[in-house]
Amino acid sequence: IIKECLIKSWWLMVYFPSPASSRSMASKTPVGFIGLGNMGSPMAKNLLKHGYPVIATDVFPESCKELQDLGAQILDCPAEVADKADRIITMLPSSPNVIEVYNGPNGILKKVKKGTLLIDSSTIDPSVSKEMAVAAEKMGAVFMDAPVSGGVGAANLAKLTFMVGGVEEEFTAAKELLGSMGANVVYCGPVGTGQAAKICNNMLLAIGMIGTAETMNLGIRLGLDPKLLAKILNMSSGRCWSSDTYNPVPGVMEGVPSANNYQGGFGTTLMAKDLGLAQDSATNTKTPVLLGSLAHQIYRMMCARGYAGKDFSSVFQFLREEEGQ
Amino acid sequence: IIKECLIKSWWLMVYFPSPASSRSMASKTPVGFIGLGNMGSPMAKNLLKHGYPVIATDVFPESCKELQDLGAQILDCPAEVADKADRIITMLPSSPNVIEVYNGPNGILKKVKKGTLLIDSSTIDPSVSKEMAVAAEKMGAVFMDAPVSGGVGAANLAKLTFMVGGVEEEFTAAKELLGSMGANVVYCGPVGTGQAAKICNNMLLAIGMIGTAETMNLGIRLGLDPKLLAKILNMSSGRCWSSDTYNPVPGVMEGVPSANNYQGGFGTTLMAKDLGLAQDSATNTKTPVLLGSLAHQIYRMMCARGYAGKDFSSVFQFLREEEGQ
Amino acid sequence: IIKECLIKSWWLMVYFPSPASSRSMASKTPVGFIGLGNMGSPMAKNLLKHGYPVIATDVFPESCKELQDLGAQILDCPAEVADKADRIITMLPSSPNVIEVYNGPNGILKKVKKGTLLIDSSTIDPSVSKEMAVAAEKMGAVFMDAPVSGGVGAANLAKLTFMVGGVEEEFTAAKELLGSMGANVVYCGPVGTGQAAKICNNMLLAIGMIGTAETMNLGIRLGLDPKLLAKILNMSSGRCWSSDTYNPVPGVMEGVPSANNYQGGFGTTLMAKDLGLAQDSATNTKTPVLLGSLAHQIYRMMCARGYAGKDFSSVFQFLREEEGQ
Amino acid sequence: IIKECLIKSWWLMVYFPSPASSRSMASKTPVGFIGLGNMGSPMAKNLLKHGYPVIATDVFPESCKELQDLGAQILDCPAEVADKADRIITMLPSSPNVIEVYNGPNGILKKVKKGTLLIDSSTIDPSVSKEMAVAAEKMGAVFMDAPVSGGVGAANLAKLTFMVGGVEEEFTAAKELLGSMGANVVYCGPVGTGQAAKICNNMLLAIGMIGTAETMNLGIRLGLDPKLLAKILNMSSGRCWSSDTYNPVPGVMEGVPSANNYQGGFGTTLMAKDLGLAQDSATNTKTPVLLGSLAHQIYRMMCARGYAGKDFSSVFQFLREEEGQ
Repeated sequence: IIKECLIKSWWLMVYFPSPASSRSMASKTPVGFIGLGNMGSPMAKNLLKHGYPVIATDVFPESCKELQDLGAQILDCPAEVADKADRIITMLPSSPNVIEVYNGPNGILKKVKKGTLLIDSSTIDPSVSKEMAVAAEKMGAVFMDAPVSGGVGAANLAKLTFMVGGVEEEFTAAKELLGSMGANVVYCGPVGTGQAAKICNNMLLAIGMIGTAETMNLGIRLGLDPKLLAKILNMSSGRCWSSDTYNPVPGVMEGVPSANNYQGGFGTTLMAKDLGLAQDSATNTKTPVLLGSLAHQIYRMMCARGYAGKDFSSVFQFLREEEGQ
Repeated sequence: IIKECLIKSWWLMVYFPSPASSRSMASKTPVGFIGLGNMGSPMAKNLLKHGYPVIATDVFPESCKELQDLGAQILDCPAEVADKADRIITMLPSSPNVIEVYNGPNGILKKVKKGTLLIDSSTIDPSVSKEMAVAAEKMGAVFMDAPVSGGVGAANLAKLTFMVGGVEEEFTAAKELLGSMGANVVYCGPVGTGQAAKICNNMLLAIGMIGTAETMNLGIRLGLDPKLLAKILNMSSGRCWSSDTYNPVPGVMEGVPSANNYQGGFGTTLMAKDLGLAQDSATNTKTPVLLGSLAHQIYRMMCARGYAGKDFSSVFQFLREEEGQ
Repeated sequence: IIKECLIKSWWLMVYFPSPASSRSMASKTPVGFIGLGNMGSPMAKNLLKHGYPVIATDVFPESCKELQDLGAQILDCPAEVADKADRIITMLPSSPNVIEVYNGPNGILKKVKKGTLLIDSSTIDPSVSKEMAVAAEKMGAVFMDAPVSGGVGAANLAKLTFMVGGVEEEFTAAKELLGSMGANVVYCGPVGTGQAAKICNNMLLAIGMIGTAETMNLGIRLGLDPKLLAKILNMSSGRCWSSDTYNPVPGVMEGVPSANNYQGGFGTTLMAKDLGLAQDSATNTKTPVLLGSLAHQIYRMMCARGYAGKDFSSVFQFLREEEGQ
Repeated sequence: IIKECLIKSWWLMVYFPSPASSRSMASKTPVGFIGLGNMGSPMAKNLLKHGYPVIATDVFPESCKELQDLGAQILDCPAEVADKADRIITMLPSSPNVIEVYNGPNGILKKVKKGTLLIDSSTIDPSVSKEMAVAAEKMGAVFMDAPVSGGVGAANLAKLTFMVGGVEEEFTAAKELLGSMGANVVYCGPVGTGQAAKICNNMLLAIGMIGTAETMNLGIRLGLDPKLLAKILNMSSGRCWSSDTYNPVPGVMEGVPSANNYQGGFGTTLMAKDLGLAQDSATNTKTPVLLGSLAHQIYRMMCARGYAGKDFSSVFQFLREEEGQ
């Protein structure tokens, strides 16, 4: 191991001329992790599995117990974590949480060390990512946005896709770290473009899912067998992920939420949230998004009509006749 | 050849107990073809290439010349064709044309022989297909709807996809014939389900194309490189045919209309027409199709604003800022 | 009475030079009425109140009893009515009913007398009205479309609005008759334009109602008192019938369905039907109707989600959070 | 005049127990005005006409000349104005401008005197109004949002509608001041509700205008005369401000932009901006606004397609066939 470290060090010192080299010198130095919810918890666990010491915190102490039992060191607040780790990953629900955790009174930037790599995997407004990057830079730290795709299932299996935005030089360091939690780590461009890519993907996903649900419903009403219709769509130009990998019609496919009463998966509330971010971005850049806008409204309606906790493919059920009609 | 015919005959007489057997006895008997437009012409040519004698007609004599030069026999009207062929394919622009060609004063049904197989590859309202099937049955003929997918390109290359509806027993006979013009011949169910499958596919295609155009436009406005964004979408859940096979953004892909100023391909007017059929079907079956409905309106708007002759992927251009703004 | 008749006759013979004059000679000759449903029944009653002898029929004998008790003569089928009356009003649910009643085996046109005035007050596809007009003309009769607005309430109070299409010369005769059932009788143009006006009005009404519901809901969520918001809208450019005469928010206005749990009024199913007609017309004339199309989809969705029997202003309730969320 | 002042003072001292009384003691004390654009300039002029001394500033010195010639005192920045006036009106394009003018380095709050009444007539996000109110309160000043409706025309004629949010006690003072610039001054509720009312009205207005344009277009395609159709709509349940006061179809009405090639009026860009604010508010409060959302997208599209400078009723032209098709 020592020989490996020395060789790696030499290679790294050559390869990374930036302040990151000191960070990467011993790649298994502690990694900070802030936000141990449905996604953060399995992500942090995968870091532990890969041999990274983890120093973590969460506003809810109960969320920390499991990780503590697995060997993570639990501290009281983000600032404490920043004091002890020079690579930190954050996984938080929304912009206000990110602003608080980075810029708040007990936030990361209160105690962050120069050269620290900050990777925010929350899905938030790209302009907030840019703000955090500017604030981090003032403290000599490096901020990257790296929102994920794949949901809790992929988080558990370390098969997430990370869409990373930030200074390109830092990407390799980020990739090494994120690679223990994901199967795809993609560089997207400057800070904010990771969020942009995530938001764009989810807008197109929502459009494809609602489109698939409407199409399957129409086809069934016109006398087509659902499985046959799906087969035809999937061999034709109508093909999309929602029809060939996550079909919303019960009975067409196994192992997807439609086969399990729409339990699990990616919730309607989360999709509505992401579509809200897409809408905000579109409004701010004066971009017309007619279908994207309507998709957002449809998921917003579903939240209000009892579908908040169901997988987003339940839009098929939402469009169908209620029982007894 | 004679030996082949005899063996085939024996096999067919065993295999096809229906009236179709007499039709299939010598599989290269003349095939009627009515409608020699952009699609019908190359389709009829492929029949000729496969050794089928073709007896054809079209309301425009000029459309018949090319086929005549290639050896087809040109007659004056559909009734004349029906008198000479016991397998007839029709390829017409819309429902009124189909009704005229089948049920009009000089229509097919005026002289159709018992047991004739009628295959309509026009894209029309499924309820009209069902009407024609009923009318044909009264004359002892068999009607199937078999609309196509793939456009002029696929028509030329005999790579069309046929979606066939009708009596299942007749499918094999239809498949044999259509196989000389297409790469996929799919049985969809009773009469009308071929139209249903086609209409459904094109509705989902339109939704996917507009969704892709909006998404690519938003991503570009948020600082993403188009090629990179397409790459990310195509490895993620946003993936669809429009993003990975027919991307609407110039420069992302070669060999597609966006790389050629949106020339060729599948015109906006045709897409608007198909979406109108989808909307009619949805209205008639009381099916909510929010995105499908809006997609129809968007393509209808594009027709009015100068995009009628462009490929349907020009929606990307339609959503972008006009030059000089 | 005889003196009155003679004076009227003289005046009418001067005023009406068309074949209608013989019809109008004695203005209280029997009027046929076919279709005694929710609307037809009160309409026929108002004819009786105005002293017109009524000869009626309906597919459901039970619907005829009330009118019979009030003095109407009930016959077996439309043809019978046509044999006895030279002015006939029809009030039927949809196009197929109209086609059956006029053109069916026992239909009006089987026995209609030359010069008969046929007024169809059903709300149907304008192209069907035109078909009926052509068929009627072949039998020497005159057909006008005169769909109504105002609902059951206005029907009872003889305060309907009739939108009349047909030959202008016949309008005065129609107006006299319809004036006993309505407060407004408007000439719209050739046959079919009455339907067009009705369909257009209801499309704009639906858009206004959904718009008002969304606006009121948003305002309430932003802290505005509903009554105050309505007051502001109604003194400003947001003003519309749905906000100032039929507000969908409980507590804002009395005497409207929102004050009575959305009972009565103009049902969601009926609105969805009219919007389907508007959509068909738009598709057939290649007219982009983005909001109209979406309004249609929204009402179609509401039908599937339990709102079919409620007044169309219940869209406000549909957009709100369900209880317990 | 002195007697009038004394009587007013006595009355005011009785009527206004709040700190405002000192402000209102001599009602013609100088009024600050920040933002002298298309709207601000005529508004400030009307204040001058009513005898209020005006102390003004604007980032563009050229905008100040006209007012200076009319007797206003021009100062260098908002802070200077705050130092000299205890009633200040701001009229700025958007949230960032408001934040700068109030909270910036040379902003109002740098020098504002205790008890100052701050009235912001910009149309911005209600949450920003609330922020400014909190910041103002810290400095002992009172902030009210009072966005306007009516456009440049109404601004010139002092016929604006003000929708006011803030502490109810201060409303009378605000009303007195605003009354010199408007015909309607309406109290809406706490801070932010003025913006809410404005945003809601304009969302419903946009929906009504697009709905009217679609409806008129459809009716014309179905053979109806535009003037007659408008007349029918306006006597029926389809009636709305856009159809009866600002009809978008050329030839239907005089004295409106449609009669003048859509010049003047309320620009498409401004409407798109307001609809963006409505969308933001809806997203933030999780309110489904399907038609409102689509209306926003339509106006956003129009901005990109050459309609940015035209009156918002030009949507009718946008939906019609381009010349030469």
